[in-house]
Amino acid sequence: MMNERLQVGVVYYPEQWDSAKWEADVKRMKEAGVTVVRLAEFAWCRMEPAPGQYALEWLDEVIDLFAKHDIAVILCTPTNTPPRWLTDQHPDVLPIHANGATNHAGVRGHRCLNSHSLKHYAAAIINQLASRYGKHPAVIGWQIDNEFGMQDCHCPQCNASFRQWLIDKYETISQLNEQWGTIVWSGEYSDWQQVTVPYGGSRFQNPSYLLDFTRFQWDTTESFLTEQIKLIRQYSKQQFITHNFHTYPQRLNLHQLGRVLDVASFDYYPNTAPHKQATGSYSGALALDVTRGIKRKNFYIMEQLSGAPGCWFPTWRAPYPGFIRAFAWQAIAKGADKVLHFRWRSAAAGAEQFWQGLIDPSDVPGRRFQEFSQFAQEVNRLSPKLINTTFQHQAAILISHENMEAMRIQHQSNGFDYYENIKDYHRALTKLGIGCDVIEVGALLDQYKLVIAPSLYVLDAETANRLEQFAHAGGTVLTTFRSGVKLINNQHIQAMLPGYLQQSSGIYVEEYDAIGQDVVHIRDEAGETYTCSAWCDIVSLQGAEAIAWYEDEFYSGTAAVTCNRVGNGKVYYAATHPEERYLRKLLTRLAEEQHIAYHAGLPAGVQIIERFNDSNKYLFILNLSREKVVIPLDHPGYSLLNEAAREAELELAPYQLDIIEVPLKNV
Amino acid sequence: MMNERLQVGVVYYPEQWDSAKWEADVKRMKEAGVTVVRLAEFAWCRMEPAPGQYALEWLDEVIDLFAKHDIAVILCTPTNTPPRWLTDQHPDVLPIHANGATNHAGVRGHRCLNSHSLKHYAAAIINQLASRYGKHPAVIGWQIDNEFGMQDCHCPQCNASFRQWLIDKYETISQLNEQWGTIVWSGEYSDWQQVTVPYGGSRFQNPSYLLDFTRFQWDTTESFLTEQIKLIRQYSKQQFITHNFHTYPQRLNLHQLGRVLDVASFDYYPNTAPHKQATGSYSGALALDVTRGIKRKNFYIMEQLSGAPGCWFPTWRAPYPGFIRAFAWQAIAKGADKVLHFRWRSAAAGAEQFWQGLIDPSDVPGRRFQEFSQFAQEVNRLSPKLINTTFQHQAAILISHENMEAMRIQHQSNGFDYYENIKDYHRALTKLGIGCDVIEVGALLDQYKLVIAPSLYVLDAETANRLEQFAHAGGTVLTTFRSGVKLINNQHIQAMLPGYLQQSSGIYVEEYDAIGQDVVHIRDEAGETYTCSAWCDIVSLQGAEAIAWYEDEFYSGTAAVTCNRVGNGKVYYAATHPEERYLRKLLTRLAEEQHIAYHAGLPAGVQIIERFNDSNKYLFILNLSREKVVIPLDHPGYSLLNEAAREAELELAPYQLDIIEVPLKNV
Amino acid sequence: MMNERLQVGVVYYPEQWDSAKWEADVKRMKEAGVTVVRLAEFAWCRMEPAPGQYALEWLDEVIDLFAKHDIAVILCTPTNTPPRWLTDQHPDVLPIHANGATNHAGVRGHRCLNSHSLKHYAAAIINQLASRYGKHPAVIGWQIDNEFGMQDCHCPQCNASFRQWLIDKYETISQLNEQWGTIVWSGEYSDWQQVTVPYGGSRFQNPSYLLDFTRFQWDTTESFLTEQIKLIRQYSKQQFITHNFHTYPQRLNLHQLGRVLDVASFDYYPNTAPHKQATGSYSGALALDVTRGIKRKNFYIMEQLSGAPGCWFPTWRAPYPGFIRAFAWQAIAKGADKVLHFRWRSAAAGAEQFWQGLIDPSDVPGRRFQEFSQFAQEVNRLSPKLINTTFQHQAAILISHENMEAMRIQHQSNGFDYYENIKDYHRALTKLGIGCDVIEVGALLDQYKLVIAPSLYVLDAETANRLEQFAHAGGTVLTTFRSGVKLINNQHIQAMLPGYLQQSSGIYVEEYDAIGQDVVHIRDEAGETYTCSAWCDIVSLQGAEAIAWYEDEFYSGTAAVTCNRVGNGKVYYAATHPEERYLRKLLTRLAEEQHIAYHAGLPAGVQIIERFNDSNKYLFILNLSREKVVIPLDHPGYSLLNEAAREAELELAPYQLDIIEVPLKNV
Repeated sequence: MMNERLQVGVVYYPEQWDSAKWEADVKRMKEAGVTVVRLAEFAWCRMEPAPGQYALEWLDEVIDLFAKHDIAVILCTPTNTPPRWLTDQHPDVLPIHANGATNHAGVRGHRCLNSHSLKHYAAAIINQLASRYGKHPAVIGWQIDNEFGMQDCHCPQCNASFRQWLIDKYETISQLNEQWGTIVWSGEYSDWQQVTVPYGGSRFQNPSYLLDFTRFQWDTTESFLTEQIKLIRQYSKQQFITHNFHTYPQRLNLHQLGRVLDVASFDYYPNTAPHKQATGSYSGALALDVTRGIKRKNFYIMEQLSGAPGCWFPTWRAPYPGFIRAFAWQAIAKGADKVLHFRWRSAAAGAEQFWQGLIDPSDVPGRRFQEFSQFAQEVNRLSPKLINTTFQHQAAILISHENMEAMRIQHQSNGFDYYENIKDYHRALTKLGIGCDVIEVGALLDQYKLVIAPSLYVLDAETANRLEQFAHAGGTVLTTFRSGVKLINNQHIQAMLPGYLQQSSGIYVEEYDAIGQDVVHIRDEAGETYTCSAWCDIVSLQGAEAIAWYEDEFYSGTAAVTCNRVGNGKVYYAATHPEERYLRKLLTRLAEEQHIAYHAGLPAGVQIIERFNDSNKYLFILNLSREKVVIPLDHPGYSLLNEAAREAELELAPYQLDIIEVPLKNV
Repeated sequence: MMNERLQVGVVYYPEQWDSAKWEADVKRMKEAGVTVVRLAEFAWCRMEPAPGQYALEWLDEVIDLFAKHDIAVILCTPTNTPPRWLTDQHPDVLPIHANGATNHAGVRGHRCLNSHSLKHYAAAIINQLASRYGKHPAVIGWQIDNEFGMQDCHCPQCNASFRQWLIDKYETISQLNEQWGTIVWSGEYSDWQQVTVPYGGSRFQNPSYLLDFTRFQWDTTESFLTEQIKLIRQYSKQQFITHNFHTYPQRLNLHQLGRVLDVASFDYYPNTAPHKQATGSYSGALALDVTRGIKRKNFYIMEQLSGAPGCWFPTWRAPYPGFIRAFAWQAIAKGADKVLHFRWRSAAAGAEQFWQGLIDPSDVPGRRFQEFSQFAQEVNRLSPKLINTTFQHQAAILISHENMEAMRIQHQSNGFDYYENIKDYHRALTKLGIGCDVIEVGALLDQYKLVIAPSLYVLDAETANRLEQFAHAGGTVLTTFRSGVKLINNQHIQAMLPGYLQQSSGIYVEEYDAIGQDVVHIRDEAGETYTCSAWCDIVSLQGAEAIAWYEDEFYSGTAAVTCNRVGNGKVYYAATHPEERYLRKLLTRLAEEQHIAYHAGLPAGVQIIERFNDSNKYLFILNLSREKVVIPLDHPGYSLLNEAAREAELELAPYQLDIIEVPLKNV
Repeated sequence: MMNERLQVGVVYYPEQWDSAKWEADVKRMKEAGVTVVRLAEFAWCRMEPAPGQYALEWLDEVIDLFAKHDIAVILCTPTNTPPRWLTDQHPDVLPIHANGATNHAGVRGHRCLNSHSLKHYAAAIINQLASRYGKHPAVIGWQIDNEFGMQDCHCPQCNASFRQWLIDKYETISQLNEQWGTIVWSGEYSDWQQVTVPYGGSRFQNPSYLLDFTRFQWDTTESFLTEQIKLIRQYSKQQFITHNFHTYPQRLNLHQLGRVLDVASFDYYPNTAPHKQATGSYSGALALDVTRGIKRKNFYIMEQLSGAPGCWFPTWRAPYPGFIRAFAWQAIAKGADKVLHFRWRSAAAGAEQFWQGLIDPSDVPGRRFQEFSQFAQEVNRLSPKLINTTFQHQAAILISHENMEAMRIQHQSNGFDYYENIKDYHRALTKLGIGCDVIEVGALLDQYKLVIAPSLYVLDAETANRLEQFAHAGGTVLTTFRSGVKLINNQHIQAMLPGYLQQSSGIYVEEYDAIGQDVVHIRDEAGETYTCSAWCDIVSLQGAEAIAWYEDEFYSGTAAVTCNRVGNGKVYYAATHPEERYLRKLLTRLAEEQHIAYHAGLPAGVQIIERFNDSNKYLFILNLSREKVVIPLDHPGYSLLNEAAREAELELAPYQLDIIEVPLKNV
């Protein structure tokens, strides 16, 4: 399923509008440059108005209309929103919260993925859809359900399924007791019947138990996804199958779910608030890198910002002129091969009325539509140049959903947040113009020179060894405090920290000070001082050397950042979380040591993404700020977007961008 | 039921005190100047100690005691607090919250207005009361229940009643689906049994559904009220029937309920906190104008501040000397023909112990009692002068409970609040000394020159036409952003905003920026700048002219406030919510254009209310501040309160007031 | 059960560790100086793995191991954590919250003290333990359950028990109606079946009812405790029985529960945060004085800080060097005759993993262990000198759990907190170096010269008389606003405030201003001004004289603090809550009048505690701060800790202390 072209499109809900509008809509899409649409996400009640009564003629009509105008279609399985008759006749479809309350119908996501009734009716409608459209030439792929999340369902079926999952995993109740350490607080189980989902939802339950309940939910979601994929694959061989993840950090295990998908998708809503300008575009860059990391290949955007989101939170600020187009281009630059804007026209009914589409309910196109249209036509024009160009990143950041969940279950210190810390490291890299991949802890690292692995909290020996070998072979590893703390069963390691990383890091942690939101200072070798927060390990050097020292507290003068030579490489350990200014300085050092190119003085908000083919480098240079900027260019090139040569420097107005083709022979 | 005199009185709960105290209490009331009391509000358990066993002799005795001392009695129907035996034997009386929890007995308001058991026992006790006291010469009127509010009851009976209400309204399930737009998120109903009250209470349910649930509750309350009125009217023809509303903004539809009452009442507790001094008295003025607007005539205060409220919130600050009397006079000035202070003596038992009455549980009168006594005697003295004097307001503010609820269901932007915005406009008018009526959107406007109608969010064509005709005939209309957004069914209009007001306003809204609590500046024709907040419409002038412009953001230089000539009048449109300083400037302009008199430099906290009879104007001049003030007088007059002539200016100590009679021939 | 020596030890959970570790642990304890351990607190599931199947051999082995190394053992009854089989087979063990939700198993404290099933199985296991260990020579005492708290259980058994408790107390339903004042809001009961626990948990229920529900819970806890004591006493005559209270203020009635214990215990976790430095050590001093006041004799610390607590709140800051030892010595100084650190080794499993013990899960001892070891050995060395030395305090602070609960049920003003106010008075005394006892309101006062009794809110005539007699006989009483407000039934007194204290205080309260967190100023006789907060009584002098006056508000110039001569003594009344600087000034005056010695200029964070025997005074001088301090000494003495003479002054490094023996003949 190699991509033949970049595609831009929209999410369209024909069922929400008078059918008399359909053809005019499709024609206007075509004129705007749309080449793909997503359909039928929440249309179950129209596709099956009563149990077993299918009514798909309207959908045939819509798909044929798109086919007629040569616009490709992505269809959705409608399981996110079971119809009223289903929840009414089979209330076991509805999830039950930890407090026993029913997750009533009427919003979205009101279905338990373990419900037999749901699975039965889901299979039936998917069979209908897949058999009818599985070979339809206009239908290029499928989106399963919508924006999976952790349901935390406590219904009787989940209770039974969780128990069975535990029996399969542990076989004996004594093995479960041992792995969970239930002796604490007299919690030993003497019978499987005593084991339940965590009713009541107390966060003070046994953390080994809670982490297993998380893993159970991950497996539940994977199984639900896999079942749908199997049903579609009965009829469809060529169409891709994806799922649209949303809102990172995501409690679900993206990497686990990604393994059963053909391609990962993301719903990308960069924050429009002026006060988010300093960080928002970098958080977006991370989200796109995370998405690309799910399958370590390019991905799709199933929903791209089209205006100000609103509805169940205060309406966002209006996107600044250029904002919509610039962030859509950012997605392409980061590896999105399809970008579908959400949504064609803002809803005129229902709870999502103020989530802006490209066009208002008045149906009069305005500024948002013009930006989209420009973007679509640019992409269509440049697609042949850009499709299948590749990334050649030398740096990677490691991320782990097990770590994220384990530290959510047992919060480490006030103000400490695993994903926020990753954001800080990623932003520092991005400001240095160093592209990176964001991949799963435990993944193969062969292609990289530098690996950043913050807080490897739940860690097994194999992963620790892999990192040590990577360093031994000449790589640089940077890890931090709260690494090696937990065994896979979420019990505390009975060893000095950082546990399995003691030898490779060349230090051990004597004690720690969970400073939280208090501030402690560090000093580097140049004598400059920086603030740090969240946590301070107090370390003993066991072969490593210090490259920064605490300036405050009773551990003033001891090592805050260390470096240990391991074979041909190095392992750095940040015992605390320094401010971004220090992270940039540290990462500059690491880049220089590994001969990784970087940009020393990129203006705030500017991001550079490099893509390659055999003969050229493609520089995406994005000004994601409200200020005009000037960026020096290392090599002359040709602006694909503006069809003109570019020499020593590039001036970009607010939210403008350029794409420079640089022949590799010039570099 | 023309008022023959102004009356001042108290709320009295004889059942809470030893009957040996009753006569002394009544005598002390008489001496203080009391002419009316309210009785029996929460006395059901004493009036009917067991099902069908009535015990009203004690109430006879109390009423006779008041009659003996020539003090009029207002009786209450006791339905706010069903007795223990009723909720014990008929638990269906108790409301059920959205989360399924029972609203247990023990506080107040623990009754579902749709409960058959409640209605049955309510009818029985009201029959008893009405038949016994319906023609009692001392009993002048009735208060139904106490402080109705939105119960949001989700009991089985409410569920059934709501469904029937919908069947009556929509007749077919397909009509309901269409009007609610349930196709969104696959929410179409295929059977009436699927339609329920909004279990779970999610605010993200369909907004058309939620607004209908609100309307259902309004109708429920109206029906409960009407039923009680009918029961009383079987026996009583002359006694007035009222209800005491409380705490604005009120989610109930005051105008709808007011239609079945003889007179509206309000429970008035102006905030005593020093930090509320700058706004509190103006919010109070609005509340009184809102109450007068319910029936567009004078009203009663069933509960007037007597000291510091407390109990279920931290006790308020002690009222400053003069505060109690000044705000009681404010109520009279604004149209209260009866003012009953809550309460005679602070409770010595129960949860309301720290809500101060006029006298402490010690029964030793102090400062609060003295102020009340002075007030009562002043009113008694001036009643012949003041009774039946009228307002002659040339300005009106339009308010709508449909708008309020619809914007509560779908919050528009962070910091945007419909009622708070109305407060700002009303305060600006009050500071200019421009009296106004606050009336229902859709009301007749013939008597006004200036109509201020903020955020006409839910709007039908008829109301829009009425405003346009008002302008055409020479009036001035001022409306604002978020007008014309919604159809009556709470779906978004499929037209450019402000929808039905496009033509009369001479603009359309190209897009909007929901700035929330961010700040944007505007500049007026004089070049002065002001802040604004909440929302910025970006408008296209289609005949209107701009009179203020944005100074910030990408729409800098575009119109922020516009004026459109319509026939002999004008329609102004404020595309944003400017600070009060600008509102005063704008309203000054509008007043001058319409030749409405205003006061340019009233000191902070001073309010002037004008009342008229055939020969005189009566100026109530209130200093509702902690500072001494001097107010210039336009015309000489005679101080009714101080029985002395008043010439060029008036000096008022903190929380003092004057009432000046000015012969119309002098004006 | 006279104490023969001071003991230092640890809390140990052998069942949580591989038994191969036990002997090494015990030997390391022995070397560190441990003489006592606490065992088996949460080990029910190991002691009785199935109903009626007891397995205590492992515990025998552990106890024998300690016996072998001459370490005494304190055993716990395990009722805080019922095993899974018990809650599974008898769900009535689980408490029910006010909202009807079950308090599920899996954390701790998941047992209703009124549950028959719990009582049955508790009796059985305690019989087993007491019969087996009641005469074991190594077992010196018992801890009942763990950290009792208010369960607020609403299960059917609690409902039935509460009703019976009320029948026993009031006999007739009319008596209950009268005492609770249920007539308010029509709440009169006509049948006992209508009376329930406060379902729904509304804080706006009748306060007399809610205070009785609190008392019922106190009696429930006392009864549960008494029953366990009886069971143990069947087998054990010499072993002490205690309970470990925690986290003051404590909603349970410590004095009531203390009456059935041999000795009170406290779990002492002084806050390690730098920003708590200014107040934390003083709050700790109060907690220790409160604990000593429970039985008016020395006490034990069952859990003493060993590192940074964490787990269900963000991890605390690391204890500063010296912190752990200094606060352990503070406990000894204040009367703790045994101090057990919690816990030997941090948990490696379960929800308490990050609550630091003395040693990390790595089992490598570090700084925390060294401090503990130093402390243990110091105590062992000095025990013969210090054991059974006594306090000779001339001042007392009166505290009442009835007041605390009654003011929690009806919060008096924003920012007003009964226990926080007591903290302020106690801190002022401590900063003046004036030792005091903190005893129950109503206790005998013969030994004191000065009694401080803030906010005697619920007050009976007998207590008021006792205070008056104390003053009459020459004592000084200092009481405050919100005294004499309530009768014992939590109804408001029908008299001028301060009610029963009117005559002795020589004032009455005309009115009050609940200023909350607003600030009002007062001026003293020297003309100095101070801030005050929370509340301002406006008082009329009826024999008392003012010694401070308000400077603000309409009551400026009236008395803020008064003094009334009563016989040979005086009653002071603080009508407001002044800042600590004023409290120190006022208490200095009172100390001088009563010839109580005080220290005028103690550095911040320094605490002095005096203990006596027949021939010597022992001064514990603690520097509980991060600064070096110098403290002048009144008399030369001998440093027991450093074995050296001490003359005019003492220098103490951060978190260091000294113990000076001063022969009484030198004083």
